[in-house]
Amino acid sequence: MPRKNAKKAKQEEPELPLETKENKIETTDDGIDESSAVAHRLASKQREISISEFFAKNRHLLGFDNPKKALLTTIKEAVDNSLDACEETNILPDLGVSIIPFSEDRFKVIVEDNGPGIVKAQIPKIFGKLLYGSKFHTLKMSRGQQGIGISAAGMYGQITTGKPMQITSRISPKKQAHYYRIKIDTTKNMPVIVEEADIDWDKPRGTRIEIELEAKYFKGARSVDDYLRQTAIANPHVTITYKTPENQEIVYKRSTDQMPEQPKEIKPHPYGVELGTLDKMIKTSEVRKLKSFLCSEFSRVSSKVAAEICQKAEVSETMPLGKITDTDIERVFKSLSAVKIMAPPTNCIAPIGEELILAGLKSVIEADFYTSKTRTPCVYRGNPFLVEVGLAYGGKQPADQLMTLFRYANRVPLMYQQSACAVTRSIVNTAWHNYGLQQSKSSLPMGPVALFVHIASVWVPFTSESKEAIAHYPEIIKEIKLAVQDCGRQLGSYLSHKRRLLDSQKKLDYLESYVPHIGIALREILSLTEKEETKIVVTLKDTLKKSRMPGVE
Amino acid sequence: MPRKNAKKAKQEEPELPLETKENKIETTDDGIDESSAVAHRLASKQREISISEFFAKNRHLLGFDNPKKALLTTIKEAVDNSLDACEETNILPDLGVSIIPFSEDRFKVIVEDNGPGIVKAQIPKIFGKLLYGSKFHTLKMSRGQQGIGISAAGMYGQITTGKPMQITSRISPKKQAHYYRIKIDTTKNMPVIVEEADIDWDKPRGTRIEIELEAKYFKGARSVDDYLRQTAIANPHVTITYKTPENQEIVYKRSTDQMPEQPKEIKPHPYGVELGTLDKMIKTSEVRKLKSFLCSEFSRVSSKVAAEICQKAEVSETMPLGKITDTDIERVFKSLSAVKIMAPPTNCIAPIGEELILAGLKSVIEADFYTSKTRTPCVYRGNPFLVEVGLAYGGKQPADQLMTLFRYANRVPLMYQQSACAVTRSIVNTAWHNYGLQQSKSSLPMGPVALFVHIASVWVPFTSESKEAIAHYPEIIKEIKLAVQDCGRQLGSYLSHKRRLLDSQKKLDYLESYVPHIGIALREILSLTEKEETKIVVTLKDTLKKSRMPGVE
Repeated sequence: MPRKNAKKAKQEEPELPLETKENKIETTDDGIDESSAVAHRLASKQREISISEFFAKNRHLLGFDNPKKALLTTIKEAVDNSLDACEETNILPDLGVSIIPFSEDRFKVIVEDNGPGIVKAQIPKIFGKLLYGSKFHTLKMSRGQQGIGISAAGMYGQITTGKPMQITSRISPKKQAHYYRIKIDTTKNMPVIVEEADIDWDKPRGTRIEIELEAKYFKGARSVDDYLRQTAIANPHVTITYKTPENQEIVYKRSTDQMPEQPKEIKPHPYGVELGTLDKMIKTSEVRKLKSFLCSEFSRVSSKVAAEICQKAEVSETMPLGKITDTDIERVFKSLSAVKIMAPPTNCIAPIGEELILAGLKSVIEADFYTSKTRTPCVYRGNPFLVEVGLAYGGKQPADQLMTLFRYANRVPLMYQQSACAVTRSIVNTAWHNYGLQQSKSSLPMGPVALFVHIASVWVPFTSESKEAIAHYPEIIKEIKLAVQDCGRQLGSYLSHKRRLLDSQKKLDYLESYVPHIGIALREILSLTEKEETKIVVTLKDTLKKSRMPGVE
Repeated sequence: MPRKNAKKAKQEEPELPLETKENKIETTDDGIDESSAVAHRLASKQREISISEFFAKNRHLLGFDNPKKALLTTIKEAVDNSLDACEETNILPDLGVSIIPFSEDRFKVIVEDNGPGIVKAQIPKIFGKLLYGSKFHTLKMSRGQQGIGISAAGMYGQITTGKPMQITSRISPKKQAHYYRIKIDTTKNMPVIVEEADIDWDKPRGTRIEIELEAKYFKGARSVDDYLRQTAIANPHVTITYKTPENQEIVYKRSTDQMPEQPKEIKPHPYGVELGTLDKMIKTSEVRKLKSFLCSEFSRVSSKVAAEICQKAEVSETMPLGKITDTDIERVFKSLSAVKIMAPPTNCIAPIGEELILAGLKSVIEADFYTSKTRTPCVYRGNPFLVEVGLAYGGKQPADQLMTLFRYANRVPLMYQQSACAVTRSIVNTAWHNYGLQQSKSSLPMGPVALFVHIASVWVPFTSESKEAIAHYPEIIKEIKLAVQDCGRQLGSYLSHKRRLLDSQKKLDYLESYVPHIGIALREILSLTEKEETKIVVTLKDTLKKSRMPGVE
């Protein structure tokens, strides 16, 4: 209804509660009489809910609970996307992050990268539509998974300030950059282009996003500063130049030029598939026959394995997928788990590696002892994943506080909901007193320790869309525990070695303090000259020093 | 591409990575050359993600983490919908819940109600589409809010068993019932009708849903049995007939014929609106001028208040909404919070009431002392809400364990994530030793106590879509604490009164044990007969008994 006639129309036809056009469509096949009027009244209120409306109302699910967290989440989503894009196209990431204060509770966030840029036609959808992206349907490790984050950040900015998001992106030095100002039509979950233009840009390639939003800037734990520092630890190949709201410039320079290995996309593994999913795969596959379907749509299903699956299911290998019955599908499904199939390939995940974890830890934590462990990959619900742990002990870390825990998923630091996370559960359930640390029941251990835990997976199961904590899958908890225990044992031997050294040092110090007295006594007994006495004292001290070899008790 | 030609086509034209029709559409306005090939390759992978795909992959967000929880969530979603429909149409709810075991990990769930039924055209959408419903856009207390639950339960059944959901619904005794078998096309988030028919049904009105699913049945805390029992406590007007998988019939009969008051729908309150939301409201309103817009679209905005808002914002009252600028909107927004406006009406929420809470508690917990408190409504982010608390002390409840906590939101028991809930936070932060209970730090108090906490709101902010815990809004935590403290004080005076009674009883017992000796002594001193002695003893005991009045020390 066009706006200018709306009110008039309303006044002229005020009594059409059930006869409006909209409701007529809904109820044509169910005539309205008095006895069914109630059901019709209810029906008239049913409506589709757009995913943007849903998340606008439930924005705490996306990490936009409050102005402090909103600032962090916005930057996190933009940085995640930039890093993913650079790595996927083998570009060493150079990121710029700026927070410009407009007032105490209003800021502009700018994140700029040197990535591949975004094709013009994709820009409005990527930034102006929730649930749009390239990573959801791909079994491959990446930071983003859902296609919600960055558009949700733009939507939050729009809700709190009314301002559209700004995007500048250039895909080649031979082309101009595309500039967009975009809002989201939350009722339809569709982008609204406020402005678009081709512009000159001094960058040959890259993407820059600007979001104005209601926010609060603070320092310390869970701040943007903290997040960027933690990002640098797990991403030693990244350079980030960060301009704080106080106009300070902080640069995290890359410590390696070596890009992480490119993870490869894999097909689903038969052990992780569910009956309904198999059903859908069979009904939408372009392959014609059962055996070739099994071979081509799953990972690790060789011709021999496929034949075995068909045989166990008592369904012909050449069964055309178009003719397969529901009972057949159920039998195939059952034999999928009955046949022995190799674990999925693991080049779909790229660990940071023990060496770079150590380097990362050393770059931010001054400690006396470092260790790290990268486990071999495992599988949960068909998804390959692996766990890596790094540990730094001693230095200036406080001895009378709980351990500092850095949690990461696919190289992204997890800043909130520590207590709800599978990582925390695993650490709390590890017996740290075995490794020389104090620990109260259901609590992190105490001591001058920083622990770094990274889970890398083609699909990280988070406890909410805001991706703050990892869900409690038993396979994941077990792997974290094993990796943590490995580092714990290293710490344990370091500490007991250190204790032994300290003990022997004490004994030697004690003995050494007696040496001059022995000298005096000998001189008196043997009537030695002072020179002879000095010689004896020096010899004795030397002997003691020589026995003070590391590890000698 | 039709399936039978697919493979052939693939073999004949193997080299079309960037030239396929789909990609051409996406990239027409950005010519492909070598320097921009990377961006085009990335673009070719971008896709829309349907909300059903999203939740199928993330089904733990909806409460389908594992087979045990899936059974509970399925029943919970169906029962929520049935109760909402009955109450909205003023029907005393009679529900049937059955769980039929097919094997150890496969069940059929049937939930049947005597509600108003569902209009034929709506059935496929309500059950075969996520994010479709009547409650999301309505500011009124109800159990369902999101339009996700029941279709997600059907989707879970479909994913794990391949079977469609079955729905039978009848809207009038004068019509036949509609019968549907429905699946969800998860790629499109659209219903697929497997079967539809008009059938005879012995029920004059109502809805019956049947879902076959992978599940696990168990008893005890967080079981379906537990959930139905807790539902009965908070819904004394409901009768539920429950047939367990072991074919036992458990009936929770209604204890009152009085329906809860019907909550009324309200408009948003100006204090809860955000700039972007105001912007959207102004741009989509059918009203023409600013002042009338303010009066008609918000609650508690009288003509006088609207005039004040316009004046403070320095925008004309008669400003046509079509001509209003972004700066105007921002000024109106700011003056919304600067003007004093009455709190929102509270008939949009219907408390259970102190009396019915007591009745509910008494029906399931045998205790020595009961108390309850219904607070007056408050507001968070513009949403009215209220808190009610009930407490039962003593009886056969164990004294050496933590308090039993029953959490409810809009009359629905919350079964999981107790530690993540604002209710728990509020109780843990209450100083229970003031009320005579022991309590360790950051823990629930210990003792033979059951606590019932209900939060009723037009929009309950849950920590996840599975609606298991309430988010930590400071306003909500504060209200819960106040209500809990009120009941705590009642408990405190009961306990200290009881302690005083006990003390005085002890003293009297002690005195009473001396009475016979006094008798003997008096007889000896005064040379009384045995009869006289007995009389004195009786008189003395009587005197003591009379002094043993409650509260006397």
